[in-house]
Amino acid sequence: MAVTSLFDPSGIAVVGASETPGKIGYEAMRNAVEFDGPVYPVNPSASGTVFDREFVSSVTDIDDAVDLALLCVPAPVVPDVVEECGAAGIGGAVIFAGGFAEAGKEGKRLQRRLIEAATEGGVHLLGPNTSGFLLPSEKLYATFATDVEAIPAGNLVVVAQSGGLAYSLAFRAENEGVGVSAMVGLGNRANVGFQEAIEHFDADDRTDAILLHIEGTDHARGLLETCHATETPVVAYNVGEQDVGDFAESHTGALTGRYELYEAGFAQYGVPTVRSVQELLDAGKSLSSCPRPDGPNVGVVTAQAGPGIAITDRLKAAGAELPMLTDETRETVEEILPGMTYSANPVDTGRPMPEFGDVVAAVARDENVDIVMVYELYERALGYPTGTLEGLVDEVDKPIVFASGGPDAALQNELADLEALRIPVYRTPERGADAVAALVRYALRNAEPDVVAEKVSR
Amino acid sequence: MAVTSLFDPSGIAVVGASETPGKIGYEAMRNAVEFDGPVYPVNPSASGTVFDREFVSSVTDIDDAVDLALLCVPAPVVPDVVEECGAAGIGGAVIFAGGFAEAGKEGKRLQRRLIEAATEGGVHLLGPNTSGFLLPSEKLYATFATDVEAIPAGNLVVVAQSGGLAYSLAFRAENEGVGVSAMVGLGNRANVGFQEAIEHFDADDRTDAILLHIEGTDHARGLLETCHATETPVVAYNVGEQDVGDFAESHTGALTGRYELYEAGFAQYGVPTVRSVQELLDAGKSLSSCPRPDGPNVGVVTAQAGPGIAITDRLKAAGAELPMLTDETRETVEEILPGMTYSANPVDTGRPMPEFGDVVAAVARDENVDIVMVYELYERALGYPTGTLEGLVDEVDKPIVFASGGPDAALQNELADLEALRIPVYRTPERGADAVAALVRYALRNAEPDVVAEKVSR
Repeated sequence: MAVTSLFDPSGIAVVGASETPGKIGYEAMRNAVEFDGPVYPVNPSASGTVFDREFVSSVTDIDDAVDLALLCVPAPVVPDVVEECGAAGIGGAVIFAGGFAEAGKEGKRLQRRLIEAATEGGVHLLGPNTSGFLLPSEKLYATFATDVEAIPAGNLVVVAQSGGLAYSLAFRAENEGVGVSAMVGLGNRANVGFQEAIEHFDADDRTDAILLHIEGTDHARGLLETCHATETPVVAYNVGEQDVGDFAESHTGALTGRYELYEAGFAQYGVPTVRSVQELLDAGKSLSSCPRPDGPNVGVVTAQAGPGIAITDRLKAAGAELPMLTDETRETVEEILPGMTYSANPVDTGRPMPEFGDVVAAVARDENVDIVMVYELYERALGYPTGTLEGLVDEVDKPIVFASGGPDAALQNELADLEALRIPVYRTPERGADAVAALVRYALRNAEPDVVAEKVSR
Repeated sequence: MAVTSLFDPSGIAVVGASETPGKIGYEAMRNAVEFDGPVYPVNPSASGTVFDREFVSSVTDIDDAVDLALLCVPAPVVPDVVEECGAAGIGGAVIFAGGFAEAGKEGKRLQRRLIEAATEGGVHLLGPNTSGFLLPSEKLYATFATDVEAIPAGNLVVVAQSGGLAYSLAFRAENEGVGVSAMVGLGNRANVGFQEAIEHFDADDRTDAILLHIEGTDHARGLLETCHATETPVVAYNVGEQDVGDFAESHTGALTGRYELYEAGFAQYGVPTVRSVQELLDAGKSLSSCPRPDGPNVGVVTAQAGPGIAITDRLKAAGAELPMLTDETRETVEEILPGMTYSANPVDTGRPMPEFGDVVAAVARDENVDIVMVYELYERALGYPTGTLEGLVDEVDKPIVFASGGPDAALQNELADLEALRIPVYRTPERGADAVAALVRYALRNAEPDVVAEKVSR
């Protein structure tokens, strides 16, 4: 089921548009007019203009090519409005109102009526009970949320059962030097769910990784198979390890309680899973910027033992292998730094030094290594080995991931220079290790099931 | 064993001081001269001045009240210099050199000689094999590390087996609006270990929480008892879940591999444990700024269901209780927000609103609640409920912890206003939940062992 009219519209109708700040019909209108295309406020009981657009009484009165409607009307009238959308040839509708499947028997009945109207009119529904979606690069803000223009454009798509959680992630993106190609809150998933959204954004040129937030779904196998079939890497944040059943059901009408099943299923299908929005963002950053890893073998290079040990500990817990380096690599490393602190894997240079980049390059070129994980505290006098590492990622065609600490003001620019080389940088040892763990799990997607089961202990 | 001469010196001697930038003897001198007290460069083969201080040949030539020596000399001469320190009445020495217990049989012998010299002369040793320590409020930088002045002064002490790991944490403090009273890298712990450092900083007025990084120690029970006996809350980051044995031993000469023992021991003794430097910092921020919690019962208030569910999930996994609210609280909440989205515990207001602060206050006043956890996405038009919450923490004498997302530029100031009310703020749902989990575990310190065992599943 293609959802183009929803996520790639030509024009927008805001049904229930309002002149009163604070009302959803006002906030949605304020966001909608940022879009570079026709935007119509629809309200039978209003006249004049709002945001310089003239009110129309009904979606059926619009002549222009409008294919997306934002429904800012109360739940009981939603099915009728969707019917009108169908009649007007509008193929996508975002339904903000709650009071459907998440709100008991009466709500479930209303949702069934809504789905019937949508099916009949050929309307793709986002929601109900959603805060909507946004595509920053298009300035398409199909939402009533505020401050959305602060969310940077980039190459990660966030498909979330909860819009609130997606925003919590998107506002962190700013801080981490990444951005989103789209952010979608699915809400009750009346007829557009994870599968439809994943398939749409898998085919989207701007999207290099797909981040999922899942509270529960009735179509577990379908979801897993969709994730496995994508060309674009997928990471999943699956909430509901503990029993949060009745609160969760009151949210988007979904049943939780299948946590272990999902975790096992995702591992099996090579979809990395994470346990927080920060980890979801961090995994997405590596998966979207690094070359795809060929295997789970990590070469660790560190300039400080303590963070190196913390990283090694965490990588092993996540099922990574730390292979022996080849004799050739060990000789090269010994030549670069005679009598070095620790020259197995991890390689520990003891402290940052001018030769540090050469050591990283030697490990990256090792045929036993699929992924390189580096830790280096920033020292102003040395900076990062950006010059030495230039071109290395393309040459070895392997992920190289940095973790680093240091004074914010000093390292901000140099960090951006490293990231321009397709080397993502994380600000604590463990965040770097978790991002590498996601690469390791992604690398296992083509492995035999028993290999996966053995490696993935978490 | 008091370690005052080490951590609270009157004057400093830098032994092996050098005029060559990049050398440890130069970097240590550069840092030392920031201190407001006499600082002597000591080097028998140098003359003239360095950083405007005249070289002296030996610590025994110093008349002034100098009680701390920074030893920037190679391992083999360290025991002799420590002997001279003892003779000169210098009661504290920081030994940067490696090549002791972490470096095989020969190194172990050298460390024994060192300890004998120290014992005889009454010298407290930090290290060997350490990057030293620092007290930002005193501008006392007993280290060769660079950019140390970027580490903000505050009320958290970091006592770390690895200096590198401590720096990785301290440089994040800047970003989180907290600071350190002191930061100590213990290194090989020749005669000053965790116990001595913890006892010293427990008695320090500037310190409100003690953060530990542990790779391994031979005195597990002593460490646990010391942590349990402190007045100041302690949090421990215990590294080494996996087998990282030989790399770790090469680091500070300590044996790892007792991970489960430590985790169980800390839980038993009411010392929260964490799994990353970020979590260590976050736990320290709450434990140092909030009132001490009376029990593990958390009242959750959220303005968005998705983050609320993620928080609830994580809190339950950490052993928190989410009690029923009293009838009185539920009535108050229903009065404030009739027909609210979800009014059990968690309380879900559906979205931010002007009454949000009143709901938080009602839950904070509930007698079934020991700790309040709040999630609210920032909305510019509403801001945070700072006015409503003013005075609340002191009134209820309970921790109130916020997690919140939003555009950095918009919320920076308001976030600082909330924190001025002793309400720590975290930028993702899970980080807030983890900080509350640390409060929960701390609250269990006076509980019966079987209660602890039952609650602490992680």
